[in-house]
Amino acid sequence: MPDNAQQFASDNYSGICPEAWQAMAEANQGHQRAYGDDEWTARAADHFRRLFETDCDVFFAFNGTAANSLALASLCQSYHSVICSETAHVETDECGAPEFFSNGSKLLTTRTEQGKLTPASIREIALKRKDIHFPKPRVVTLTQATEVGTVYRPEEIQAISQTCDELGLNLHMDGARFSNACAFLGCTPAELTWKAGVDVLCFGGTKNGMAVGEAILFFNRDLAEDFDYRCKQAGQLASKMRYLSAPWVGILQDDAWLRYANHANHCAQLLAKLVEDVPGVSLMFPVEANGVFLQMSEPAIAALTARGWRFYTFIGAGGARFMCSWDTEEARVRQLAADIREVMAA
Amino acid sequence: MPDNAQQFASDNYSGICPEAWQAMAEANQGHQRAYGDDEWTARAADHFRRLFETDCDVFFAFNGTAANSLALASLCQSYHSVICSETAHVETDECGAPEFFSNGSKLLTTRTEQGKLTPASIREIALKRKDIHFPKPRVVTLTQATEVGTVYRPEEIQAISQTCDELGLNLHMDGARFSNACAFLGCTPAELTWKAGVDVLCFGGTKNGMAVGEAILFFNRDLAEDFDYRCKQAGQLASKMRYLSAPWVGILQDDAWLRYANHANHCAQLLAKLVEDVPGVSLMFPVEANGVFLQMSEPAIAALTARGWRFYTFIGAGGARFMCSWDTEEARVRQLAADIREVMAA
Amino acid sequence: MPDNAQQFASDNYSGICPEAWQAMAEANQGHQRAYGDDEWTARAADHFRRLFETDCDVFFAFNGTAANSLALASLCQSYHSVICSETAHVETDECGAPEFFSNGSKLLTTRTEQGKLTPASIREIALKRKDIHFPKPRVVTLTQATEVGTVYRPEEIQAISQTCDELGLNLHMDGARFSNACAFLGCTPAELTWKAGVDVLCFGGTKNGMAVGEAILFFNRDLAEDFDYRCKQAGQLASKMRYLSAPWVGILQDDAWLRYANHANHCAQLLAKLVEDVPGVSLMFPVEANGVFLQMSEPAIAALTARGWRFYTFIGAGGARFMCSWDTEEARVRQLAADIREVMAA
Amino acid sequence: MPDNAQQFASDNYSGICPEAWQAMAEANQGHQRAYGDDEWTARAADHFRRLFETDCDVFFAFNGTAANSLALASLCQSYHSVICSETAHVETDECGAPEFFSNGSKLLTTRTEQGKLTPASIREIALKRKDIHFPKPRVVTLTQATEVGTVYRPEEIQAISQTCDELGLNLHMDGARFSNACAFLGCTPAELTWKAGVDVLCFGGTKNGMAVGEAILFFNRDLAEDFDYRCKQAGQLASKMRYLSAPWVGILQDDAWLRYANHANHCAQLLAKLVEDVPGVSLMFPVEANGVFLQMSEPAIAALTARGWRFYTFIGAGGARFMCSWDTEEARVRQLAADIREVMAA
Repeated sequence: MPDNAQQFASDNYSGICPEAWQAMAEANQGHQRAYGDDEWTARAADHFRRLFETDCDVFFAFNGTAANSLALASLCQSYHSVICSETAHVETDECGAPEFFSNGSKLLTTRTEQGKLTPASIREIALKRKDIHFPKPRVVTLTQATEVGTVYRPEEIQAISQTCDELGLNLHMDGARFSNACAFLGCTPAELTWKAGVDVLCFGGTKNGMAVGEAILFFNRDLAEDFDYRCKQAGQLASKMRYLSAPWVGILQDDAWLRYANHANHCAQLLAKLVEDVPGVSLMFPVEANGVFLQMSEPAIAALTARGWRFYTFIGAGGARFMCSWDTEEARVRQLAADIREVMAA
Repeated sequence: MPDNAQQFASDNYSGICPEAWQAMAEANQGHQRAYGDDEWTARAADHFRRLFETDCDVFFAFNGTAANSLALASLCQSYHSVICSETAHVETDECGAPEFFSNGSKLLTTRTEQGKLTPASIREIALKRKDIHFPKPRVVTLTQATEVGTVYRPEEIQAISQTCDELGLNLHMDGARFSNACAFLGCTPAELTWKAGVDVLCFGGTKNGMAVGEAILFFNRDLAEDFDYRCKQAGQLASKMRYLSAPWVGILQDDAWLRYANHANHCAQLLAKLVEDVPGVSLMFPVEANGVFLQMSEPAIAALTARGWRFYTFIGAGGARFMCSWDTEEARVRQLAADIREVMAA
Repeated sequence: MPDNAQQFASDNYSGICPEAWQAMAEANQGHQRAYGDDEWTARAADHFRRLFETDCDVFFAFNGTAANSLALASLCQSYHSVICSETAHVETDECGAPEFFSNGSKLLTTRTEQGKLTPASIREIALKRKDIHFPKPRVVTLTQATEVGTVYRPEEIQAISQTCDELGLNLHMDGARFSNACAFLGCTPAELTWKAGVDVLCFGGTKNGMAVGEAILFFNRDLAEDFDYRCKQAGQLASKMRYLSAPWVGILQDDAWLRYANHANHCAQLLAKLVEDVPGVSLMFPVEANGVFLQMSEPAIAALTARGWRFYTFIGAGGARFMCSWDTEEARVRQLAADIREVMAA
Repeated sequence: MPDNAQQFASDNYSGICPEAWQAMAEANQGHQRAYGDDEWTARAADHFRRLFETDCDVFFAFNGTAANSLALASLCQSYHSVICSETAHVETDECGAPEFFSNGSKLLTTRTEQGKLTPASIREIALKRKDIHFPKPRVVTLTQATEVGTVYRPEEIQAISQTCDELGLNLHMDGARFSNACAFLGCTPAELTWKAGVDVLCFGGTKNGMAVGEAILFFNRDLAEDFDYRCKQAGQLASKMRYLSAPWVGILQDDAWLRYANHANHCAQLLAKLVEDVPGVSLMFPVEANGVFLQMSEPAIAALTARGWRFYTFIGAGGARFMCSWDTEEARVRQLAADIREVMAA
């Protein structure tokens, strides 16, 4: 059971989905030009432009740490600052990568309701200091879906974008789980990004069925100047790029990206529904993407762990995070829900 | 023909070898803990320790740019300098990555015979400046095999290492083609590294049959302190690490790494032998690894290109570089040699 | 009046004290070797060693921003973090300089009572995260006297130092107003630094009568390795160093540094005493150094400003900061106090 | 004699000139707003605008290391490169400061005749590499006067500027001895800078009679965006700024800067003339600014040193550098020349 029991720990515990694997297998034929000059990379970029209905600049990086940090570094200088939620992954789980890639840009965090920034919270931070003794705010970064499983609506993003325009801020979106947001809202990728004013999106592949690799999409193409040099210098240019780009072709060409996101979201909804009437269990955040955050008693958490389930409990006293993935099995969701019911009854 | 004709452009134009592919396929089962906490990563590290006959610290990075730059950054501070050959890849083809990762360490280059540093050349640079107005030399980096296809002998490395000890310098080896060096010399990996005084080796996988990924081996383990944090911050920690480590298991467990290196070296030797009597063609460097550097006339080079062959000509007037790979076909080598003979005769 | 009315805005609004000026005048004779190889710099360093009763390593930098940032950078790597109070100058007023000089080290702030860190608050932050996804704590920085005018006692520093030892943290002291702390406590500089476990002190000269220049004292001399190179690379090595070091000779040789600190502290105490019975006015923090922080009504603050007084009000609703300097005139203190009484009565 | 004998070692061995000293004394009255918000700083900036006959942006930094490095960092990103002469101070004597401040920009050096870049040499470097594996050239930096005492003519600068325009390069001038260049050519500062296409000038004060401080003038004001933040973060914002700016008022208001430069140049010309017929002595470079570079025999150099003279010999076998300063005494020049004649005759 250890293997399957890990299914809810993190969506990057999962493997490579069949579509991505198949594309890699196809790409693994003969020789190809290196460093992105190959046909697979061109095809992947075209798929993104089609999907987003715009002629954006597309780059590929190895992981989300680098993709987001490089994107942010391209939007500000070292003496500028980046406004984000206090729960933002770039703040809490990147070991200072944004500061490193930007050579010192400070992250300015704000408390958020349900992980989401608002125009008011952005405005408050951006206007708090206007002197040269504090880094000048220059970028806002949103995570879509957020780290607590909530999803920004198009109109929320638009409102934030307008605030950014007023204040001279660029708008970046960390889309590690962007697929799940699209799936939840039924919106097109364009509606959730450039049509709502997003300048740059980091579209996550790893958490949705790929081995490695994130795509960086500049809708504001002026901001992409020499970004290829930036990637190269920062150790993010793959020599055999086809293995980063082909999987994107695989999951984009027949909408596997969306099917899998829908599946993961569905599993999360199912779990939430199955435990909603369990006494003592409550949702910490609305379930909108592929994560379920449950308030549970400490003994219940310990009992669940003892039964072999793996999940994170970093949220605070009594909180447990269950992440669903592209390959989560419904049967396992039901079994988990049943076990939660039992340990809470004990 | 375009596909096969690319076979001599670069060893990173090649694909994934069967052993690496098979290991990835095996690793692609169920869920695994992320960030290197998985069984494949542990196995790969153990394979390295066995192969190198020592209890070294092993890390995995996405590519050689990052592996070498991170290793160098761990061996010096920003106000220190790195001594290297003027042909060193870190100097000529990494877009300033070593300077970026180290926040400003300067590379001090020296002219070399056949791409190899010597104790004398190191001493000359290291002792040239002793004042605080110039970065203090702290590291020597060797490329094994070198960028021009030559190979350091164990006694050459030992002599350099002794010089490093005398001068207070750490010794780093860029082993993008370390396999080819081992194959050529018939030496064990240990003999070419820690037994000869190397502190840190970046062992290249990409050019020898992997999709992505380099291993960083610290023989001097004191230098590896917190190197895992360094990798994470620099965007080089893979979440689904198993896909970086499993291929290593695949090519290390039955010595595929060495077989393939031998094959590539053999193809290079074959090509050199087949053209040795072609009038007007001469070897620019001894053929010791998997590259053949030929002095040829410009019209001949143009004629070869017109026949569809792909190769690099960056070396200077009249020079052409032909790289052999793990999957180079002998028949293609013979055809290339025949074409060289023809175009030179024209 | 504008000139004198500025006397309480900041202690760096003041000029050069006579002793520092006289030393500069003496130093300004003939030619002297550059870059610190001159006799004045040697004398200044000796004065520090005598004053601190230990053979510490002494360096000079242009200002506190650089002195503190370079010192912190020498105590950690980019993937490490620095624990400080949320009111620490390095966090609130250096425009990200510590992050810049260290290439990305994160500052971890904690709420403090009266601006002072405690072993408990340090332990809480240091132990909160132990995974590689968050920068590893490596340094604690104290400000002595603190930004809110309070002073760490020797035993408080010792307790913090013990905590640092337990947790593997280096201890840095930002001594922009170190003189004021010594004066208040009647302690020797040694008692407040290395005898209490401080590794590195940045001793501020600017706020105590100098034009430019801070001294960096490494009591833990191992940490000073190649620090001269670090200063040079970071643009902090003065060519005509004598003009940075001679003023130190001037204020150290006859204890002017301490007399002036005593004077500034005395003025602060006087101001506090003169307003202590003014209805509606209360001290926000105990007055221990040269700053007085008063809770006052907004209209009173506006009225004071209208009378030409200059002071800062950044602390929060109703707070006003009055700083005394080496040259603050008692008559001005009394006039200010009288005006405060009047505007509060209005 | 040791003191006076140092007069030819370096122009930063000299002290503060009377005009600068007097201005500092005047500035040292009462309190002044900090961080450049004072009247002296405003006056100094206005003097520069008047002198350069244009509304440029003016900033002050502590020394040339920082001024040049910050200016270069503002003209490129970390993955860009800076073209300079192999003798450029930023390459040879700044301990990697440009690389540090820019977070990794590479300096691309070229051999020069008499220390001067040419359009052809710039074009050769700029066009050598056009791929992302090498930092993209973005800036050219000239030193005026050069490190070997030669001076760019206005038409030479214009020609370089045109080349920069063609190639998309910004043009920076390191003016550590800009005064000496103006004096030699009899040109206005405007003619040698913005009228000839220079984007940014670092105007050196230290070598021409100031204690500390360089001015950074942006003629292309778009490039100065947020440069004040950059200075602050990099530890180059003086709190008591008046002591950096007042000396500029002192030396600019009555053209002391030019008189002193003329004097230093005159002394250099005198020395060159006095030794021109000494057998065995020859000029290594034309004497155009305040330095004289003499080819002399090693024994003669040793004999001179034995007589107490101080000078640098870093140029290569047999070369000696004699620098004249604002306060060099003609009598000492004549004595030096006589001694050179004697030691060469020995």
